[in-house]
Amino acid sequence: MKVGILNVTGYAGSELARILAHHPEAEMVSVTGRSAAGQRLAEVFPHLAATDLPITEEIEESVDVVFSALPHKASAEACGPFYKQGVKVVDISADFRLKDLPEYESWYSVQHPFPELLEDAVYGLTELHRDEVAAAGLVANPGCYPTGAVLALAPAVKAGIIEPNVVVDGKSGVSGAGRGLALSTHYSEVNESVRAYSIDGHRHLPEITQELRSDGVEPRVTFLPHLIPMTRGILSSCYADLNPGALPGGDAAAAALFEVYRDFYRGEPFVKVVDQPPHTKHTLGNNDCLVYPAIDPRTDRLTVVSAIDNLVKGAAGQAVQNMNLMFGLPESMGLETLALYP
Amino acid sequence: MKVGILNVTGYAGSELARILAHHPEAEMVSVTGRSAAGQRLAEVFPHLAATDLPITEEIEESVDVVFSALPHKASAEACGPFYKQGVKVVDISADFRLKDLPEYESWYSVQHPFPELLEDAVYGLTELHRDEVAAAGLVANPGCYPTGAVLALAPAVKAGIIEPNVVVDGKSGVSGAGRGLALSTHYSEVNESVRAYSIDGHRHLPEITQELRSDGVEPRVTFLPHLIPMTRGILSSCYADLNPGALPGGDAAAAALFEVYRDFYRGEPFVKVVDQPPHTKHTLGNNDCLVYPAIDPRTDRLTVVSAIDNLVKGAAGQAVQNMNLMFGLPESMGLETLALYP
Amino acid sequence: MKVGILNVTGYAGSELARILAHHPEAEMVSVTGRSAAGQRLAEVFPHLAATDLPITEEIEESVDVVFSALPHKASAEACGPFYKQGVKVVDISADFRLKDLPEYESWYSVQHPFPELLEDAVYGLTELHRDEVAAAGLVANPGCYPTGAVLALAPAVKAGIIEPNVVVDGKSGVSGAGRGLALSTHYSEVNESVRAYSIDGHRHLPEITQELRSDGVEPRVTFLPHLIPMTRGILSSCYADLNPGALPGGDAAAAALFEVYRDFYRGEPFVKVVDQPPHTKHTLGNNDCLVYPAIDPRTDRLTVVSAIDNLVKGAAGQAVQNMNLMFGLPESMGLETLALYP
Amino acid sequence: MKVGILNVTGYAGSELARILAHHPEAEMVSVTGRSAAGQRLAEVFPHLAATDLPITEEIEESVDVVFSALPHKASAEACGPFYKQGVKVVDISADFRLKDLPEYESWYSVQHPFPELLEDAVYGLTELHRDEVAAAGLVANPGCYPTGAVLALAPAVKAGIIEPNVVVDGKSGVSGAGRGLALSTHYSEVNESVRAYSIDGHRHLPEITQELRSDGVEPRVTFLPHLIPMTRGILSSCYADLNPGALPGGDAAAAALFEVYRDFYRGEPFVKVVDQPPHTKHTLGNNDCLVYPAIDPRTDRLTVVSAIDNLVKGAAGQAVQNMNLMFGLPESMGLETLALYP
Repeated sequence: MKVGILNVTGYAGSELARILAHHPEAEMVSVTGRSAAGQRLAEVFPHLAATDLPITEEIEESVDVVFSALPHKASAEACGPFYKQGVKVVDISADFRLKDLPEYESWYSVQHPFPELLEDAVYGLTELHRDEVAAAGLVANPGCYPTGAVLALAPAVKAGIIEPNVVVDGKSGVSGAGRGLALSTHYSEVNESVRAYSIDGHRHLPEITQELRSDGVEPRVTFLPHLIPMTRGILSSCYADLNPGALPGGDAAAAALFEVYRDFYRGEPFVKVVDQPPHTKHTLGNNDCLVYPAIDPRTDRLTVVSAIDNLVKGAAGQAVQNMNLMFGLPESMGLETLALYP
Repeated sequence: MKVGILNVTGYAGSELARILAHHPEAEMVSVTGRSAAGQRLAEVFPHLAATDLPITEEIEESVDVVFSALPHKASAEACGPFYKQGVKVVDISADFRLKDLPEYESWYSVQHPFPELLEDAVYGLTELHRDEVAAAGLVANPGCYPTGAVLALAPAVKAGIIEPNVVVDGKSGVSGAGRGLALSTHYSEVNESVRAYSIDGHRHLPEITQELRSDGVEPRVTFLPHLIPMTRGILSSCYADLNPGALPGGDAAAAALFEVYRDFYRGEPFVKVVDQPPHTKHTLGNNDCLVYPAIDPRTDRLTVVSAIDNLVKGAAGQAVQNMNLMFGLPESMGLETLALYP
Repeated sequence: MKVGILNVTGYAGSELARILAHHPEAEMVSVTGRSAAGQRLAEVFPHLAATDLPITEEIEESVDVVFSALPHKASAEACGPFYKQGVKVVDISADFRLKDLPEYESWYSVQHPFPELLEDAVYGLTELHRDEVAAAGLVANPGCYPTGAVLALAPAVKAGIIEPNVVVDGKSGVSGAGRGLALSTHYSEVNESVRAYSIDGHRHLPEITQELRSDGVEPRVTFLPHLIPMTRGILSSCYADLNPGALPGGDAAAAALFEVYRDFYRGEPFVKVVDQPPHTKHTLGNNDCLVYPAIDPRTDRLTVVSAIDNLVKGAAGQAVQNMNLMFGLPESMGLETLALYP
Repeated sequence: MKVGILNVTGYAGSELARILAHHPEAEMVSVTGRSAAGQRLAEVFPHLAATDLPITEEIEESVDVVFSALPHKASAEACGPFYKQGVKVVDISADFRLKDLPEYESWYSVQHPFPELLEDAVYGLTELHRDEVAAAGLVANPGCYPTGAVLALAPAVKAGIIEPNVVVDGKSGVSGAGRGLALSTHYSEVNESVRAYSIDGHRHLPEITQELRSDGVEPRVTFLPHLIPMTRGILSSCYADLNPGALPGGDAAAAALFEVYRDFYRGEPFVKVVDQPPHTKHTLGNNDCLVYPAIDPRTDRLTVVSAIDNLVKGAAGQAVQNMNLMFGLPESMGLETLALYP
C-alpha cells in the first residue's frame, strides 16, 4: 500500500511519518513540504533518519492513499483532486469535518474550495463512525480536542444520562499549537505557566457540538481550551447535570455509570474505561483514549475525564486507524505501541 | 513587630520566611520545624542564607504574631495556646476555616482541638472580609484553590448575575502539594503529564461553598482540581449559567460584566480585573490575583478565569496581607514585588 | 523464550517490561517486586495494562533468562543462583560491572556476595564487547553514564587521537535517579533548576575508567554528573587534549576525525555518528546512541557529545540488545522503535 | 536619577524594567522598542502593569543614564551619541566588551560604529573591575556565560592554583536566547531535551579569554554552551589541571582552596562561596553568583561550579549593580531580593 503525506514538516505530518515507518503494510513513497522542499526527510527530522525520502513540493509517486497535514483550505485544495481521481484521502485538517458549510466558512473565514465533497466525507472519530469510515473514500480526521471530549461524553449523551448541555475544560500540551513559530509557543513564555485561550470561541467547538447533536436536541456546549507546559497530551474534563432518574440512587450510581461506559466501549482496541482518573502520560506516544466517568453526588453532576496523546489519537494515530479500516486491515495495525512511561 | 513561624520547613513556611525577610516592619525572631530542628534556616534553605536563625522545636522568643504552616490538627493544637495568650495568630492550615464544626471534622477526619475558637476565627480572604480581619486575633488563612475560585466568582454571585451553582476547574502547580515526598509529586511522574485528582471530593470544596453561600441560597459547587507540570501557580476556570436578564443583551453584556467586576475590586491593591485571559506566570512570586470574566454568548454561560501564585496570594502572601491589616499597617507592606517574568 | 524480571517496579524494570511486551521472541512469564508484591503489573503501571501478570516476591516460573533491576548487592544475591543453575542473566545493577573486586567494594561499601562470578561476567557495552556478550551467561549491563561517555570516547582513545585523559560532563534526566522518593527528585525542587551532584566521586566513574583503560595506560577521568529538569535522556559532553600529529592539520582534521568515528561504528545498528550536535530528544524512547565528535582548533582539544535515552540504551534497551545476542537473535529485535518526537 | 532603557521589549530589557521599578533612587522615564513602539509598557508586559510608560522609538526624555538592551551594532550606534553627550551608559550588548577591535569585528561580523570608544569602556564584571566601573561613563555589561565562568575561575587563576587552561561547560536556561522567535526556542523542540550548541565557537568565548588573561599568559579556553529545558539560570562547570604544589596535599587541599575563594570574594554582596554545589534555582530572580570550588584528588583537577540567574547577575541585575557604582549609590540598592524558591 503506497502512501503519500502532504505537509510532512509539521508535528502531525512528522508523527504520521513516524507511525507509518512502523506500519507493516503501508509504505511511505512520497512526502511534501513547502519551505523544506528540496531537503531530505532525515535532514529535517533526525528521529526519522532511517527514512531517506526527499521532501518535494507535490506528491511525486503514484499512491493508494494520501494523508494531508496541510493547514485548512490549502488542505481541501490539495485533497479534492486526489479524491476525485480515486485515491483514498485522510484529511487531518478541519476542511471536511463540519457538515454545515456556512458554519465552516464562518469559523474558518474562508470559502470552501470543494463544498460538494462535504457530503461524501466521513467524520473520522472511528469509534462513533466505524462503518462509514470503512466505506469512505474521504475521511475528515477529527480535531484533537473533539476526539477527547466527544469520546468522554458520547456514552452518557447516547444513554440519556445527560443532555448535551456540557462544559468541556480542555488542557493541551503545546505541540497541539503546531510547529509554526509564535510568541505563544515560545519556550520562556509557555514554561511554568498555564492559561486559557480562545475564550471567545475555539474552532473545535462546532465539531464537538456536531458530534453531540442527536435526534433534534441542539447541544449547548461551553468549551474552554488551556495551554499546559508539556509537549504532548490532552486532558478533557467534562461536566454536565445528570438527568434525574437516569441512574440508580446512592452507591449504585457509580457502578451503573461505569457499566454504561464499559458497554459502550466494549471491544474497542483504543478506548479504555479506566478505574482511576487517567494521567495524560499514560497515553504518551500511543493511540489510546482513557476515559474515567464519575458522579459528584453532592451536586448530581457527571464529571468525565479523558486523556489522549494529541498527536496520536488526536491526529496521526487516529488517521492511521482510519486508513486501516478504509483498506480492510486490522484496525490496530501499526498502532500497538505501549505508552512511553515515565 | 516580632514574628514566629511554626513549621518553616514546608513550602508555605519557607515562603513566609522569604516574604517576611523583605518586610520593613516585621522581624522573624523564631522559627520551628520538626525533622529539621537543630539546623539553621540557612542550611535547610540556601535561598534564605542571609537569615541566620536556628530552627527550633518550639517558638523560643516572645512574639507579637505567630504564623502557622503546620498540618491540620497539629496547627490548631499549636495555635490555640498562642491565641489564648493574646498573641495574634495567622493559621495557614485548614483548622479554623470552616465555620461548621461537623463539616470540618468530617472532611478532615479528626476531632477539632479547639472548637470553641471557630467563632473567633475570621476567614482571611482579605478582599471579602477586610474589616473582620483588621479586628481579628485569629485569622484562618484561606486555601489556595478557594482563594482563586472565590475571588473569581464572588462579584458575579453577589451581583446576582449567577446563582452559586458553579463548576470550578482548578489547575495547580506542584508546590501546592507541599514539600513532603510522595509518588504523586515525584518528578518523573508529574513532568509531562496532567491529571485530575480528588475527584471524589477535595477538602477545599467546603471552603468554596461556605464563601459563596449568601442569604440562604445553598451553593451547588462542583470543584475538580488538576495537577499541572509547573512549580507555582493556580488557574481557576469557573463556569456558571447566567441569570436571565441579569446583564444587558448583545454586545453590551461583556462591558456590563466587566463593570461589575471592576466596581467590586476597585481600589484593591492585589485583585486586578484584566483585559486578557491571565497567565499564571503573570503572578509568579507576587501577591496578585488576576481575574478575567467573560460571557459565552452561544450558551449564556459565564466563564471567569483567575490566576494566582499558590504560595503567595494562595498562602504566605495573603497571610502577610492579613497580618498587615491586623496590625494597622498598610495592607501592601512587604508585598509590592512585581511578578518574575519570564 | 521465557523471561523473568527481578524488581519490575522501578523505572528500569518497567522499561524492560515495556520493551519486552513488544519483543517478538521473548515472553515475560514472571516479574517480581517488593512493596508491590501481590498486585498485578497493570495496577501499578497503567501503561502496561495489557500485561496481566502478577507481581510476586520471587520468580515463580521456569525461565530462560532473568533480567535484574534490583539495587546493587541485592541484585548479585538474586542473580548468582540463577546463573549457577544455567539461566542466562542480564544484571542491570552495578554488581558485576567492575572487574576489580576491591574497587567495587570500596565504591559500593558492601561485600560482594559472589566475587567468584566477576570473572565470568561480561561488561555488556554491546558495541565494545559483542563477541563476549554473545558467548556470555552473565552480562553486567553498563551504567547509563558510562554507556554515553565510553561510546563517545572509545573511538578516539583506540585510534590514539587522545590519551584517556578526559573530562566528562554528564547531564541526565531525572528518571536516572529512579522511582524511589527523595527530596532531590521531588518535582518542585528539580523543576527549573540545574545542579551538579556527586562532585566528590560518582559510582559510574570507575566503569568509565575501566572501559577506557588499554595497554597499560591508566586513564585519568574527571566525571561530573548533573541533574537536568527533564524525565529521560543523557547528554555526555567529553573533553580531551588531542595528541599532537594524530590528525591532519587545518580543515582536514574534522573530516579525518569523522572518518575515524564512522569507521569505528560502521554497521552498528544503534550507534550513529551524526552531522549535527544531537538533542537528547532525538533518542527519546529508543535504543540509539548519537555521537558527534568535534575539534576545537583554538585549543587543539577534542570535544565529543553523545546522546542516549538513559532508560533504553542506558538500561533496559541495551539489556534486551544483549539478550538478543546471548540467544543468537538479531541484535535489533524488539528495539526498532523510532524516537518519539517532539 | 532619570533612566532610559533602549529596547525594553526583550527579556533583558523587561528585566531591567522590573528591577528598576523596585529601585528607590532610579526612575524610568523613557523606554524604547521597535515593533512595540506606540504601545504602553503595561500592554506588552502584564507583569509591569503598574508602570504606565509609553514605548517609543527613541528616548524622549532627558535622562541621566541609559541602559541598552539592543542587539549588537545597533546598540553601539545608539549608545555612542548618549555617551558623547555625557549621559552615562550601561550597554548590555556585546559591543564594548572586547578590547580587541579585530576580534570583535571577526566574532560579530560587523564593523564597529564607534571603535574609538572601546578604550573608554569598562568591562562591567563588577567584582573584578569595581573601581573602574565606579569611574566609568560607559560600561560594557558582561555576557551571561562569561559572568558565571569568570567569577568561577578568576580566584584560582589569580592565585596561581591553575593556569588559564580550562574547559567551561555552560548550561543555560532558554531565556538566554532571547524573546525573538526561532525553532531552537520553540517550546516543543526545547522541552524534555538537552543539547550542545555553537560547538564551533560561541561569541562569549573571547570575553572569557580576555578576562582570564593576565601577565602575558595567553589563556586556552574551551567553552561549550548547552541549552537546558528551563527558563532562567546558568550553571557553569569549569575544569582545569591544578598547578603542582599550588595547594597543600591531602585533606588540607580542599580547605586551602576554599580559603582562597573566600578571601577573594570576602565582603562581596553578591558573590558567595557556598558549602554545597549550588542549584541554579537558588539564584532565581536575584543577583547572586554562587560559587563552589572542588578538587578531584584522583586526577588533580580543579572543578568549580557557579550558578547565576542569566537575566539578573547575567544581565539586568549586574547592569543595575554597575549603575549604582557609577552614581555613588550603595552597590546593592534595589537588588536585595531573595531568590524565589521553589
